[in-house]
Amino acid sequence: MQELTPENITQAVLDQMASTPNPRMKEIMASAVKHLHAFAKDVNLTPAEWIKGIAFMTAVGKICTPARQEFILLSDTLGLSALVNGLHDETAMEEGTNTSLLGPFYRETTPNLAAGSQIARHVDPGTEIVLYGRVTDVNGKPLAGATVSLWQTSATGLYDIQEDPASVDYRGIFTTDAKGLFMLRTVKPLGYSIPMDGPVGEMITAQRRHGMRPAHIHFLVGAPGYRELVTALYLRDDPHLADDVVFGSSGDLAVDINPKDPECPIPGLPSIRFDMRLSRETEADRAGGRVGADPAAILKQPA
Amino acid sequence: MQELTPENITQAVLDQMASTPNPRMKEIMASAVKHLHAFAKDVNLTPAEWIKGIAFMTAVGKICTPARQEFILLSDTLGLSALVNGLHDETAMEEGTNTSLLGPFYRETTPNLAAGSQIARHVDPGTEIVLYGRVTDVNGKPLAGATVSLWQTSATGLYDIQEDPASVDYRGIFTTDAKGLFMLRTVKPLGYSIPMDGPVGEMITAQRRHGMRPAHIHFLVGAPGYRELVTALYLRDDPHLADDVVFGSSGDLAVDINPKDPECPIPGLPSIRFDMRLSRETEADRAGGRVGADPAAILKQPA
Repeated sequence: MQELTPENITQAVLDQMASTPNPRMKEIMASAVKHLHAFAKDVNLTPAEWIKGIAFMTAVGKICTPARQEFILLSDTLGLSALVNGLHDETAMEEGTNTSLLGPFYRETTPNLAAGSQIARHVDPGTEIVLYGRVTDVNGKPLAGATVSLWQTSATGLYDIQEDPASVDYRGIFTTDAKGLFMLRTVKPLGYSIPMDGPVGEMITAQRRHGMRPAHIHFLVGAPGYRELVTALYLRDDPHLADDVVFGSSGDLAVDINPKDPECPIPGLPSIRFDMRLSRETEADRAGGRVGADPAAILKQPA
Repeated sequence: MQELTPENITQAVLDQMASTPNPRMKEIMASAVKHLHAFAKDVNLTPAEWIKGIAFMTAVGKICTPARQEFILLSDTLGLSALVNGLHDETAMEEGTNTSLLGPFYRETTPNLAAGSQIARHVDPGTEIVLYGRVTDVNGKPLAGATVSLWQTSATGLYDIQEDPASVDYRGIFTTDAKGLFMLRTVKPLGYSIPMDGPVGEMITAQRRHGMRPAHIHFLVGAPGYRELVTALYLRDDPHLADDVVFGSSGDLAVDINPKDPECPIPGLPSIRFDMRLSRETEADRAGGRVGADPAAILKQPA
């Protein structure tokens, strides 16, 4: 048999994987191997560095729990998640609102709430705002009966499940009315640091990055016949709007808090308006599976 | 702020990582991000596929224990470990014996044994063999006092720690004599399947790969002033010598079991002779850290 060398090892791996019956798996794994090997060659990765990499990946996996998804966080901080979202938007039939990060905190156990409900159990004086908007097709036609699931941090900058895995707070599902309108009360979202007490936090610290996300509210929106949309709004005046540690914020998703919006359907409070346009669904969208999966459910799935 | 797109996201990530003070970390992470993004673009990775990838990586991490290192197994089955070994050999001062896989089963707790000792606690009739060889420099000069740590599977094709994490069996450290000679008794190694009950096994099954390694014995050899060598011998007559699932076997490391070797220092048994040539150590070797780290210790290190 031949001696394996850095010159022929990549082809030897591709040859061994050539028996893969699923053509898409075969394509993805072949590309992954080529790029993984090209990376190791580019930097001339040493055995000691390889061991550090193994230790890092292992630590990322070990710290994952149903309430903490460190691999999503790693993907987010390396810009991979934002890239996948951008690639996804390019395959849409129509140009609707852009995708933004799902993040690790979406939960399928979110409660259905009546229009106008306050999603926070506790509201400090002066922090309450109204959030409303219209869900339409790309031409502005209202989509009635669309489900708008949203989630955000508490006033301390933590998600409910970070404080207590059993808690459900600062999240809700609303249904649009005949004019495509959703409306609710919440509290002003806060910018926050990603969890810095794990291996991804150690990486961010070693890179001298600040670890901050600009203030935002997550959305998962669905309507029959339209492509599921995972997105977020970002507060335009946040100092980290332009350097989000997970590359989710984008100029097209930035909004202002309006102290007195005459169009706001719930008067007397500062408000955010966030309209979303959905692209019609394609056959590939239907076949492609959920875009907004519950990260806790991922952990429970068989690999 | 600008809108992030698949065209500009990679540069945005590199810009944010530009503050990394350690130049080597900066170089490695920049290359990793470039290749990770190029991979996602090459295959147009979908959100549903990304979620599957997150679930896979998480499962690989969750199954790791001090006795099981699934990320090393993943690296091995993707040919990354063999590539890193090949790159390492290219940086040696002199051309000694080639590196082969460390694998996940080396342990620092290996006992020191006297020359000629049997490393297996139990030996079935007819399976005993002698293993001997000389450790020299690249010109054949004997290296006295070199430490030769070796480990292999039991007669059932499992390592001691796979059967019982506290067990120490089928492994030992020997010291070469004035002629650079080491010698010991062991049992004939068996080819075996990598662990197929985890996420890497699921990948191998989905790729219709056989999952087998050819029969081999691992070595970790050290001598003052010489580059540490991690290697292995492979039995030439094993049917999987040319298609090792982890790309460790190589023609230059293949050996035969000789039924009657007149040079064997322990007569009366079949024997394997495996000579190893060590390259002199460079400054970079000394600075680069251990090549043969204990995978169990990796898990205990802070990430």
